[in-house]
Amino acid sequence: MKQYIEQNRDRFLEELFSLIRIPSISSEADHKPDMLRCAERWKELLLEAGADRAEVMPTDGNPVVYGEKIVDPSKPTVLVYGHYDVMPVAPLDLWRTDPFEPVVKDGRIWARGADDDKGQSFMHAKAFEYMVRTGNLACNVKFMLEGEEEIGSGSLYSFCEKNKGLLKADIILVSDTSMIAPDVPSITSGLRGLCYWDVEVTGPDHDLHSGLFGGAVANPINVLCKMIADLHDENGHITIPGFYDDVLVLSDEERALMAQAPFDEEQYKRDLGVRALHGEKGFSTKERTGIRPCLDVCGIWGGHTGEGSKTVLPSKAYAKISTRLVANQDFEKISKLFQEHFEAAAPDCVTVKVTPSHGGAAYVAPLELKAYKAAERAMQDTYGRRPVPTRSGGSIPIIAGFEKILGLKSILMGFGLSTDDIHAPNENYPLEQFFKGIETIPLFYKYFAE
Amino acid sequence: MKQYIEQNRDRFLEELFSLIRIPSISSEADHKPDMLRCAERWKELLLEAGADRAEVMPTDGNPVVYGEKIVDPSKPTVLVYGHYDVMPVAPLDLWRTDPFEPVVKDGRIWARGADDDKGQSFMHAKAFEYMVRTGNLACNVKFMLEGEEEIGSGSLYSFCEKNKGLLKADIILVSDTSMIAPDVPSITSGLRGLCYWDVEVTGPDHDLHSGLFGGAVANPINVLCKMIADLHDENGHITIPGFYDDVLVLSDEERALMAQAPFDEEQYKRDLGVRALHGEKGFSTKERTGIRPCLDVCGIWGGHTGEGSKTVLPSKAYAKISTRLVANQDFEKISKLFQEHFEAAAPDCVTVKVTPSHGGAAYVAPLELKAYKAAERAMQDTYGRRPVPTRSGGSIPIIAGFEKILGLKSILMGFGLSTDDIHAPNENYPLEQFFKGIETIPLFYKYFAE
Repeated sequence: MKQYIEQNRDRFLEELFSLIRIPSISSEADHKPDMLRCAERWKELLLEAGADRAEVMPTDGNPVVYGEKIVDPSKPTVLVYGHYDVMPVAPLDLWRTDPFEPVVKDGRIWARGADDDKGQSFMHAKAFEYMVRTGNLACNVKFMLEGEEEIGSGSLYSFCEKNKGLLKADIILVSDTSMIAPDVPSITSGLRGLCYWDVEVTGPDHDLHSGLFGGAVANPINVLCKMIADLHDENGHITIPGFYDDVLVLSDEERALMAQAPFDEEQYKRDLGVRALHGEKGFSTKERTGIRPCLDVCGIWGGHTGEGSKTVLPSKAYAKISTRLVANQDFEKISKLFQEHFEAAAPDCVTVKVTPSHGGAAYVAPLELKAYKAAERAMQDTYGRRPVPTRSGGSIPIIAGFEKILGLKSILMGFGLSTDDIHAPNENYPLEQFFKGIETIPLFYKYFAE
Repeated sequence: MKQYIEQNRDRFLEELFSLIRIPSISSEADHKPDMLRCAERWKELLLEAGADRAEVMPTDGNPVVYGEKIVDPSKPTVLVYGHYDVMPVAPLDLWRTDPFEPVVKDGRIWARGADDDKGQSFMHAKAFEYMVRTGNLACNVKFMLEGEEEIGSGSLYSFCEKNKGLLKADIILVSDTSMIAPDVPSITSGLRGLCYWDVEVTGPDHDLHSGLFGGAVANPINVLCKMIADLHDENGHITIPGFYDDVLVLSDEERALMAQAPFDEEQYKRDLGVRALHGEKGFSTKERTGIRPCLDVCGIWGGHTGEGSKTVLPSKAYAKISTRLVANQDFEKISKLFQEHFEAAAPDCVTVKVTPSHGGAAYVAPLELKAYKAAERAMQDTYGRRPVPTRSGGSIPIIAGFEKILGLKSILMGFGLSTDDIHAPNENYPLEQFFKGIETIPLFYKYFAE
């Protein structure tokens, strides 16, 4: 394998660069033609790598590239998911090189999409090529590359609904996350879900003079603050009745394994510029973001927010409130729970309106899953160390969507590093991670087929 | 008296209109020449009314008109305070008549300043004229008319400091407030003071992804809400230690007298569009705004306040917080109390900065004051009913300033009505209130000199 990579190293990079050079920014309408060009290029590359068939399939938005090689229907099938769209590049003046003309320097590829997700998804194409050419393809393979990941995967849900048969597989394999460090391999075993609400508190039906009415009429800002404060108790627990009912409680063993991930709390605090951390009692910082739900106000406003000191008792106050959910919490159930609780908690002196905004379920890959174990063994082989399962605090709603629509678990075996500056200027991807990813993937297939 | 008014009625109105026709809007720089013209016109009118001397006295801002008639140094001296500046008139299209061309219709004078305060202050000039011409001037009289009341009386404080001798008097008499109704006379016996602060809560030193960090890092909006909620207890009391220490507690008798003011709580709620009122336990609505301090958030903001649902854990949250103070509370002491309390209440995970914005003391005229009793008797004579003492929830900081600088109490004997639309389009002043004011004022002088 290492020899194959060595021999084809420059070609691999040139092929990847041909994808990177297409500025497939999904959020900018000007780049619509680039989306199609990029999808077409992926199709070519899949066919060259050894796919039996590959297609650019239309959706309501950007097309999906589908490719497959079915070696033996009795073998397990791996569905590789990735995305060919990238984030915008502004502010351009902060880039040290042209974002769409990849440069290799200091052992890294510098370009938009170098990691997220052209670099990472292309590892799968080259690992696939290796397995095909060497006769080592232990599983059937399907590729699904979308063009809207950076804008919410809007069209992919219905694409999956419509193509359940085509997408039939045993596991989804994704490289679109990062690992702890080059010498600390890890696998993202969970993502949090999300619920988001817009909240409006109305007191009097017009703004009042705070002197003439202050003290006699409920101030909707004060009321909103109290209602928000009451959403947590003194231990940092969320007080919405039933909120924790479905939360998956981790075994001591899994918590112990998670705790092995190196974490420097002092450094973490320094990076954030805070003197102290704050969260739910009884859980570590990593657990607070990884395996426990949380509730944050993402925005609040009301009354006079400009300069000076207008003395107003405003009619309305607003907030945007979100929770992050963990495994087994149903986001639609939580959405309703919050809405009912918050509206019922309103005192008589105000009217409270809660509008659910959007949400998505959490996702977790059980560590006993055969595919998880296969990924673990594959990374252990190449990195020489058992990868740590990590729970990301963030959300990738489409991963939970795959589980719901296709009934498939995903393995988030990412090779990115925190220094890759994805979504930021000077995105980069270490060559070592790129080639080690290509080396690791065939091992996953091998162990998964065993 | 009634006969004198009847005989001079048209002249009184024409003289008042000559003041009203000068658009003395203090907040608009274009009207600077009008300020001087209006002050000069007042000087003429004071001299015509019988003043021994009258002057337009410069200040750092708009001039002060001073006039006096000293009949006998052994008699008490009344200092009449009023203002010749008016509020802006925008939006002009909502006015049914030209704001600076007074029209008499439906028994009211329609114009900017008809009530506030040209109409009300000019009653004093005509009452003075009557007393001079009929040989009934029972007190020495001094007039002080400023041109910056609508923009905060900025220059009047130092004017008073510099002219303490000139302004020596026994009482200040002011008509710049309103009474409950034409058949329910009242005297404003108190005004609340004010303290205002800008508050900034800082969590992490940059905005964070609410998924990756939510639950592990304190959210400054959540913290600010909790800190604001904690400023009141479950009975609506303010929890700042020492906040109520100096609050003047009213006698049962005074509370009973205040309670006589007619007040329709259902109508009050309908006017505000609220189902329920809310305030400090143990006090009526009128008491809550009149004799009790309160704390309101006048503005709050932080995080994402635009459209959509950005998932951010913001670095900062802000609020503008004000209290209304009552008699005996020292606004500088309260300002410091709040600042220290709020900063000390900050949990370790955030930094809280409190910046005092501005403030002013409360004012109260004790009902036992000879001048208060004189005003009470005067109004009882003309309105046929004992006036009710009312405590306004609002603040007129210069009134407390007079007490501090000149050592003088003020009697707020206003003849305005709530329907006069001061500060709004179609300001008006009932002729009946104008003439009844002129009739009442000499009775005040008579009873005050007794």
